[in-house]
Amino acid sequence: MSDIKKAVLAYSGGLDTSVILKWLQDTYQCEVVTFTADLGQGEELEPAREKAKKFGVNEIYIDDLREEFVRDFVFPMFRANTVYEGEYLLGTSIARPLIAKRLIEIAKETKADAISHGATGKGNDQVRFELGAYALNPNIQIIAPWREWDLLSREKLLAYAEQHGIPVDMKHKQGGSPYSMDANLLHISYEGRHLENPAAEAEEDMWRWTVSPEKAPDAAEYLDIEFKHGDIVALNGKAMKAYEILAELNRIGGKHGVGRLDLVENRYVGMKSRGCYETPGGTILLKAHRAIESITLDREVAHLKDDLMPRYASLIYNGYWWSPERIALQTLIDHTQATVNGWVRVKLYKGNVIVVGRDSQTDSLFDSTIATFEDDKGAYDQKDAGGFIKLNALRMRIAANLHQRKK
Amino acid sequence: MSDIKKAVLAYSGGLDTSVILKWLQDTYQCEVVTFTADLGQGEELEPAREKAKKFGVNEIYIDDLREEFVRDFVFPMFRANTVYEGEYLLGTSIARPLIAKRLIEIAKETKADAISHGATGKGNDQVRFELGAYALNPNIQIIAPWREWDLLSREKLLAYAEQHGIPVDMKHKQGGSPYSMDANLLHISYEGRHLENPAAEAEEDMWRWTVSPEKAPDAAEYLDIEFKHGDIVALNGKAMKAYEILAELNRIGGKHGVGRLDLVENRYVGMKSRGCYETPGGTILLKAHRAIESITLDREVAHLKDDLMPRYASLIYNGYWWSPERIALQTLIDHTQATVNGWVRVKLYKGNVIVVGRDSQTDSLFDSTIATFEDDKGAYDQKDAGGFIKLNALRMRIAANLHQRKK
Amino acid sequence: MSDIKKAVLAYSGGLDTSVILKWLQDTYQCEVVTFTADLGQGEELEPAREKAKKFGVNEIYIDDLREEFVRDFVFPMFRANTVYEGEYLLGTSIARPLIAKRLIEIAKETKADAISHGATGKGNDQVRFELGAYALNPNIQIIAPWREWDLLSREKLLAYAEQHGIPVDMKHKQGGSPYSMDANLLHISYEGRHLENPAAEAEEDMWRWTVSPEKAPDAAEYLDIEFKHGDIVALNGKAMKAYEILAELNRIGGKHGVGRLDLVENRYVGMKSRGCYETPGGTILLKAHRAIESITLDREVAHLKDDLMPRYASLIYNGYWWSPERIALQTLIDHTQATVNGWVRVKLYKGNVIVVGRDSQTDSLFDSTIATFEDDKGAYDQKDAGGFIKLNALRMRIAANLHQRKK
Amino acid sequence: MSDIKKAVLAYSGGLDTSVILKWLQDTYQCEVVTFTADLGQGEELEPAREKAKKFGVNEIYIDDLREEFVRDFVFPMFRANTVYEGEYLLGTSIARPLIAKRLIEIAKETKADAISHGATGKGNDQVRFELGAYALNPNIQIIAPWREWDLLSREKLLAYAEQHGIPVDMKHKQGGSPYSMDANLLHISYEGRHLENPAAEAEEDMWRWTVSPEKAPDAAEYLDIEFKHGDIVALNGKAMKAYEILAELNRIGGKHGVGRLDLVENRYVGMKSRGCYETPGGTILLKAHRAIESITLDREVAHLKDDLMPRYASLIYNGYWWSPERIALQTLIDHTQATVNGWVRVKLYKGNVIVVGRDSQTDSLFDSTIATFEDDKGAYDQKDAGGFIKLNALRMRIAANLHQRKK
Repeated sequence: MSDIKKAVLAYSGGLDTSVILKWLQDTYQCEVVTFTADLGQGEELEPAREKAKKFGVNEIYIDDLREEFVRDFVFPMFRANTVYEGEYLLGTSIARPLIAKRLIEIAKETKADAISHGATGKGNDQVRFELGAYALNPNIQIIAPWREWDLLSREKLLAYAEQHGIPVDMKHKQGGSPYSMDANLLHISYEGRHLENPAAEAEEDMWRWTVSPEKAPDAAEYLDIEFKHGDIVALNGKAMKAYEILAELNRIGGKHGVGRLDLVENRYVGMKSRGCYETPGGTILLKAHRAIESITLDREVAHLKDDLMPRYASLIYNGYWWSPERIALQTLIDHTQATVNGWVRVKLYKGNVIVVGRDSQTDSLFDSTIATFEDDKGAYDQKDAGGFIKLNALRMRIAANLHQRKK
Repeated sequence: MSDIKKAVLAYSGGLDTSVILKWLQDTYQCEVVTFTADLGQGEELEPAREKAKKFGVNEIYIDDLREEFVRDFVFPMFRANTVYEGEYLLGTSIARPLIAKRLIEIAKETKADAISHGATGKGNDQVRFELGAYALNPNIQIIAPWREWDLLSREKLLAYAEQHGIPVDMKHKQGGSPYSMDANLLHISYEGRHLENPAAEAEEDMWRWTVSPEKAPDAAEYLDIEFKHGDIVALNGKAMKAYEILAELNRIGGKHGVGRLDLVENRYVGMKSRGCYETPGGTILLKAHRAIESITLDREVAHLKDDLMPRYASLIYNGYWWSPERIALQTLIDHTQATVNGWVRVKLYKGNVIVVGRDSQTDSLFDSTIATFEDDKGAYDQKDAGGFIKLNALRMRIAANLHQRKK
Repeated sequence: MSDIKKAVLAYSGGLDTSVILKWLQDTYQCEVVTFTADLGQGEELEPAREKAKKFGVNEIYIDDLREEFVRDFVFPMFRANTVYEGEYLLGTSIARPLIAKRLIEIAKETKADAISHGATGKGNDQVRFELGAYALNPNIQIIAPWREWDLLSREKLLAYAEQHGIPVDMKHKQGGSPYSMDANLLHISYEGRHLENPAAEAEEDMWRWTVSPEKAPDAAEYLDIEFKHGDIVALNGKAMKAYEILAELNRIGGKHGVGRLDLVENRYVGMKSRGCYETPGGTILLKAHRAIESITLDREVAHLKDDLMPRYASLIYNGYWWSPERIALQTLIDHTQATVNGWVRVKLYKGNVIVVGRDSQTDSLFDSTIATFEDDKGAYDQKDAGGFIKLNALRMRIAANLHQRKK
Repeated sequence: MSDIKKAVLAYSGGLDTSVILKWLQDTYQCEVVTFTADLGQGEELEPAREKAKKFGVNEIYIDDLREEFVRDFVFPMFRANTVYEGEYLLGTSIARPLIAKRLIEIAKETKADAISHGATGKGNDQVRFELGAYALNPNIQIIAPWREWDLLSREKLLAYAEQHGIPVDMKHKQGGSPYSMDANLLHISYEGRHLENPAAEAEEDMWRWTVSPEKAPDAAEYLDIEFKHGDIVALNGKAMKAYEILAELNRIGGKHGVGRLDLVENRYVGMKSRGCYETPGGTILLKAHRAIESITLDREVAHLKDDLMPRYASLIYNGYWWSPERIALQTLIDHTQATVNGWVRVKLYKGNVIVVGRDSQTDSLFDSTIATFEDDKGAYDQKDAGGFIKLNALRMRIAANLHQRKK
């Protein structure tokens, strides 16, 4: 029925992708290569190997991508203070391009002619996987089982699993998690079921990574964050790798109830959907990054970045990480970060991330001798402001004069 | 020395503007009209009348502008989810154009040929007052004493006051407030002195409107917020006037430690400055407004607004409220708010404003039959996504093909 | 095979849509309503009626939409100085939304449940028709035969025609026009065949509406153009209807070889394509509109419009005329045109449109007493410029000082 | 009266800057260094040396900056297809930053503490000189005589010249040129006098670099233009230096009447002014550059550039060439030009620059197998378009459904 001989599957080891694995073998009569990525989602990955073996898979990839993920995807994104629709820190969106890249690399290594994934036909993730894959290998074939098969309800999926000897654990038999979830070092997300009513409050026991602000410690905690070229390089004076930094920020943030978000967002495929997110480390990173930029970045450069940010965020949300326009914007963004060096002190307390101080030994543009309301000994000539205002007002005065004459 | 016969002074009744009043009379030999505005700053205004009378002022304006301020300035600004440099809610900026407008109106009523204000030559407020004034009356004369006189230190100011019989209260004799402050119904701000070191944490006893999150109640409070055309019209089911709503939001927010901000910002006149702000009501309003828009606004309209917002925010920050470009943007913004109707529920707890639900009886674009990951009975054909992705990928595939051929 | 009972077909009377008419009747066993629009394309429309009758069509619409087209679509678009990719005046794009609107209106009148059109699956027009239709009636069914049938080559199409007794004229038997063309009051376009090699010059005998600059008159012609609220209302002092104005501009422009364009453009569906266009009237209109705005529009409003224009152009090019974001932008654009009143004089000569003068009795913001390099008698204080420059330079001076200290 | 010991003067050798030279010596009692730049303005520069010597100047700089000007300023600007206010090619604006840079370099070499220039207090050039100078040396002192002295009319200037033995040639005695002019390799500009009435047509004998279209040759001329990384590297197959290319384009363009412009523009200092420009080579360059980008640049990258262009143009117009935001934008722009390689053929005829062909051996993204309306043998699946449209329409359909329900 098709000319596909070998397909690389993004395989989590869970029920859905296990059914896909089997379905691919049966439907396409093709060899399947499994690829399981450690993006810091906090799950055991070795069981995926055992399961894949049971299905007769010979080529099994289990990759630790945590450092690459944070260093080459998360950090570059935060250099732009990236937020989608004013709130969402793009935790799912930013992981997909890395998975797409590895799928294409593995397809090349294993001489596979197709890739496959478990994203549904309604969501953004299919777009992110596939746009990335096509951009990196224009001739790759892509199998998106959710858009092809007829296993569109959970019942059918379970029936298929049982029929084909795919182990279904107790949780799924009882209806599975009430939520569709995704996790990586940047965040964990929840969609579906109870959340499909945007009027209803999310249940407290849904949240997994953070305590509620109510249950967070009664004592605040201070954290010193050191930046180099726009990226965090040390916490409380201790230098760490990129992924260690994000893990540590998650730990501290989660402890203090930081980073929960309940949102209705606009999907690229056209509908609104409600999602809940926990992004403890990212929430701290965003606040701290804005703070270090506030003293090290030129005003107009900062405003240029702010103007471009929503566009950059949409590109990532919509799956265009590997597009030439995202790369062009990144060139500008990265260029601006050369001077973004220094430290920020934040205070964490029951859900709050409060910037309390910031400084840069090498790159501070804050000049208190000029900013002061006290006597500045001539650093700034207040009379200059008169001319500044006069010329900025000129066009409006000319218009107002015309307006008066017309009356 | 000048042809100014009568000047309208924006008069707070405090030491600085009292010195200005006297200085104007002496320096310009002109009549002075005083204008004191109630913008909800929470100070007694009648003492300003008494003081003005002592200086021989005959025309004394004390205006309650609270409703106009919130209805025609604060609310329109929040329709755009306006934030300057990612953080600042523009509490000072948005009050200046109203004061400028009243100064010009009063100048017309009293046949004054000049206006005067107490803003320094280093700050943004002089620009906001004067751009507004020039836009509304291109031929008005403006006296900005801080740019003219030589009373540039506090000592000289106090000496002048004493010399001219201007009462100096105990506070000022002891050095005055350690901060330069501004307050209105939207916020209170602090600048100067201890804050001029951006590395140093603000002192707890500086904050006036909010308790610290630590001292806020241990029990969260829920608040139902009703929107009509993008503005809040009722709280917990109770319809109120615009200024009453903002006052009530300030009360509740302040009680729960909501709305503190510690920021280094870029002034229009060119330097960076550090400011601390309390905007309890505005912080709630911003969150809630984004939430109601999230279900009632089209995606692309929302993104268009997000793209334009930083520019709109800069216009307000820089003093261009009365400019034709701000008004043009407002036309677009207001147009989009026709469908922004519905309610939002927020939970306030120790500094957090947490959106927990939102809905609109009349204008919700959230369609759970389409968004659901469950069987949607054909509302959405997942196969459509394949073509959607293919065509969006086409240009990148053509480029990747070229790239492969080149290698 | 389908539940479609009646379909409204955008029917030109030509071969392609005649085949579609028959194919719809046969394939869908449905009644067909034909709709033929007079958009000023300069073709006889009555033959379409005869042909439709021959196919047994009972409901035949032939509408003169010229005035609506120019007044409500072309003119509003030109208020924004709209150009796609720096060059293209959107002649085809702007006609599609009106056709979509009429298709939906006629479907309602005739109780049809579907519409159909003759645009191919590779072009932009299918998108423009269908996005418009869905936006105006979300439940309309759309039949796009080119995406469904197997008549994908000209030979198959001709064979089908012959087989079903559809008259094929001599031109088509001989291979038809070498170009795919579209015409309306704004332009005529050419695509395909010889043009598919972007390196090759278009052949002179392709162009239909304009003489070549070489063959244009040796004497220049002046034209006085009067604007009201951003639209042309009179030519050489003669008030005319909108469509008459555009027709007259086409006549004069075409005579002087104005408005030819040879372009490679980026289609919304993902590929580049080469098109040639003749837009004589539109080319004059664009030039003249910029000229009248140059003296009647505030600088920052003009710049805001320029910044938004490419986005607005893409919306129209991509088929989003009926989208809420296009309408929101239009609100802003139209608002700015209140003062765009006055006249422009252009000189037409062998392909050139040269603006030689412009003025506005009521709304000119040009103030020669200020602009003059001669003595202005105090209208402008040159010393103000010093302060203006100093404050605008401040942030760069602070940065340069830091830079010097670092070295 | 001042602490200035030595000033570098941008010296043309003309009357105005000769008066300034003398005035600086007298008023500031300082040594003056003269700097005369060859930017291709087409004037003899050696007379400037003689004149400077007569005034006792010891340090005389006469620099040939033509190659640097075109290579490092003009070409980078055209990579962005830069146009100010839809029309102006920024010929004056782009020369100023180079002069500012040399002034600062020479000040360093000669240990001067100030620079001076002959730009008036009403124009943009003062801003461009001074912003550039301050950005490059924050502590430089700047003397702008036109903002300081009282020689504000031509009569006073001539009187001063006569009084101080400054030779005044016949032309000036008779009232000088009727226009204020500026020239360099990119353009020549005219302002003032007769042009101050924007309704009046410019006189034919004003134009100096181009023949009128009427007087241009009756035979068209073709020109092959080769691009590498977005810059022209060869004309008609002949590789040349950057400045030679622009000179040759000026020659050919001028011969064919290309590049005249009559414009009312908005100055940065707040007023509208009318200028006439001749930019023959730049006009060809702009057209050709857009054409080569049309086949070598990705759609979204091209659109990103188009969206940013007006901002980039304003930065250059307003004098911010040396600002960090212009440099950040340049980083993005230059990055996009890596693939802008190939050739463009234009036809020049009586004022017209007509692109007739374009191609790239290495980087063409034009794929005729996909673009063709003929049978493409499966390169593109037309059915994909259905899904593409459906998902792009989804949000509008949901809104339309809501709208229907409301009625």
